[in-house]
Amino acid sequence: MAVRLGNQTIKTEKPITISSTASIVGTKESEGPLSPYFDVHMEDAEWGEDSWEKCESKMQREAAKLAVQKSGYTSDDIDIIFAGDLLNQCISSGFSARELRIPFYGLYGACSTMIEGISLAAAIIDGGGADKALAVASSHFCTAERQYRNPLEYGGQRTPTAQWTVTGAGAAVLKCGMESGDGPYITHITTGKVVDFGITDTNNMGGAMAPAACDTLLAHFADTGRKPEDYDLILTGDLGKVGREVLINLLETEDYDMRNNYNDTGCMMFDFDKQDVHAGGSGCGCVAATFCGYVYKMLKERKLNRVLIVGTGALLSPTSSFQGESVPGIAHAIAISNEL
Amino acid sequence: MAVRLGNQTIKTEKPITISSTASIVGTKESEGPLSPYFDVHMEDAEWGEDSWEKCESKMQREAAKLAVQKSGYTSDDIDIIFAGDLLNQCISSGFSARELRIPFYGLYGACSTMIEGISLAAAIIDGGGADKALAVASSHFCTAERQYRNPLEYGGQRTPTAQWTVTGAGAAVLKCGMESGDGPYITHITTGKVVDFGITDTNNMGGAMAPAACDTLLAHFADTGRKPEDYDLILTGDLGKVGREVLINLLETEDYDMRNNYNDTGCMMFDFDKQDVHAGGSGCGCVAATFCGYVYKMLKERKLNRVLIVGTGALLSPTSSFQGESVPGIAHAIAISNEL
Repeated sequence: MAVRLGNQTIKTEKPITISSTASIVGTKESEGPLSPYFDVHMEDAEWGEDSWEKCESKMQREAAKLAVQKSGYTSDDIDIIFAGDLLNQCISSGFSARELRIPFYGLYGACSTMIEGISLAAAIIDGGGADKALAVASSHFCTAERQYRNPLEYGGQRTPTAQWTVTGAGAAVLKCGMESGDGPYITHITTGKVVDFGITDTNNMGGAMAPAACDTLLAHFADTGRKPEDYDLILTGDLGKVGREVLINLLETEDYDMRNNYNDTGCMMFDFDKQDVHAGGSGCGCVAATFCGYVYKMLKERKLNRVLIVGTGALLSPTSSFQGESVPGIAHAIAISNEL
Repeated sequence: MAVRLGNQTIKTEKPITISSTASIVGTKESEGPLSPYFDVHMEDAEWGEDSWEKCESKMQREAAKLAVQKSGYTSDDIDIIFAGDLLNQCISSGFSARELRIPFYGLYGACSTMIEGISLAAAIIDGGGADKALAVASSHFCTAERQYRNPLEYGGQRTPTAQWTVTGAGAAVLKCGMESGDGPYITHITTGKVVDFGITDTNNMGGAMAPAACDTLLAHFADTGRKPEDYDLILTGDLGKVGREVLINLLETEDYDMRNNYNDTGCMMFDFDKQDVHAGGSGCGCVAATFCGYVYKMLKERKLNRVLIVGTGALLSPTSSFQGESVPGIAHAIAISNEL
């Protein structure tokens, strides 16, 4: 049974083990520095499907299947799936779940969706509502680009603060208990509030999301009594280069030093020198694939032992921007540890 | 701490009380038979805002505030808000939550969103992850019409199976415990699977969702050992006239007789004789406002004592339909009782 700490944090009481993860990425991500950590590298943007949207749905489905297979369970063993994506009406998730036949809750948290899903899965498992659950999220450069911005054929110029939507999917199987005894375990969940500093430049989503990440980190530190140095790694996903600097500065004014053990998945996915991605990576798939690929493997190998992952999302739509609205941000944090 | 029953159902162990609800509707809904049960009747489709989308966001915000006010708590007392809507990137919810400043999980379950939110809120409260939570959902005829179909000015002809998106919002405050001792309480949560019978007519969403409602009802009956006659009222929301008949027929082939105590919120919101709504109402706001308005008041007055609410959603998008996909359905059920 979960325990509430402070105003925004849930401390899990049972061992909530991350049994397995799976990650799938596109071609550009396969050329990036994290490439060796991903399970599946697609050879093109369609993966045998006749549209990019169908490809993205397949990415979710295959990531989910692979994570379940790696966990040693079958999909019948999974009680609930929590899934979401960036597309209108979350079609990647809905169509993926249609074939998985697992009880399904659809989520929308923009790029924070994977961490939202893991948060809810962990909280429900801790409370006895499920024994095993699956969290899945995805994004796809081509589907996002044509939905949020322009047809790819248009070839619009990108601004320096713009981020590149990652083509990627991640899936994680969470279970109650510690049969294998080696974690990693979800220990804390800090649920974010919507924070809006009035940024209206939709090409600076890192800047728009950084205040939300700051707000959630401050809540996490206050609720748990922890400090940044209590973690081997604090990882936001995904503020990119610009938002990362804003967050470091915001936390500095609150007397938290993040320079030693903090990074952002948007800054890790691509090689800034060799790959033309401006401020870095973004999209639900960025933190999902980075967590399910790189971070999870580092935890299993004990190269990391205690990490805080902060999923950040920009809750805008083209319609809200056309109507002059600013870009609200959200950030959800989960603390993961190899020790209980 | 929650207990799992069968494959898809969670039985709450603590008393999860619905402390209060609030409902807001538009002008057409104010002329319908349920009008006296709603708290706020808007005088036009803008409610003082400069776009329909901003109006919908205000509807969520005001419904949330009113529900919190009626509960006797303040928004600081609410641990988590679960909210969603039909608009791209769930902007009604995100922008509403920006002003509420309550930790926020965004959901997308199409018209099932309100019941998805109540399900998650109840499960998390039962598991100790929150003490008080808020579930909110909305829809707006004008925002939905121009996003999913055509500009209103186009004046397109509607098919006989088409449903009319309800302009409405509902909010419910759930809390742990039974201080007042009079319920109503959430006793069971049955999480639905995505079900797709291959219907490609986007103007027959009732027909597309009915198989999902059937699937979830069969799971609920199997998991709990209950039968339709154990409820004073079983309410789907919202299959409309066509989907309602399909569901009755589907369940008849499984030997369940739904003719005596079953209705659908899409069939209750409007007067079929006087209001031109073809197959009935739809939209997240239909079941949200009907539950928070009519059903909750009937429960409080003991005119109903045990009800099963099945939120149904069509997980399509214009893009998926353009690409030739069929319409997947989802349905989540919650059992509510005045007795524990």
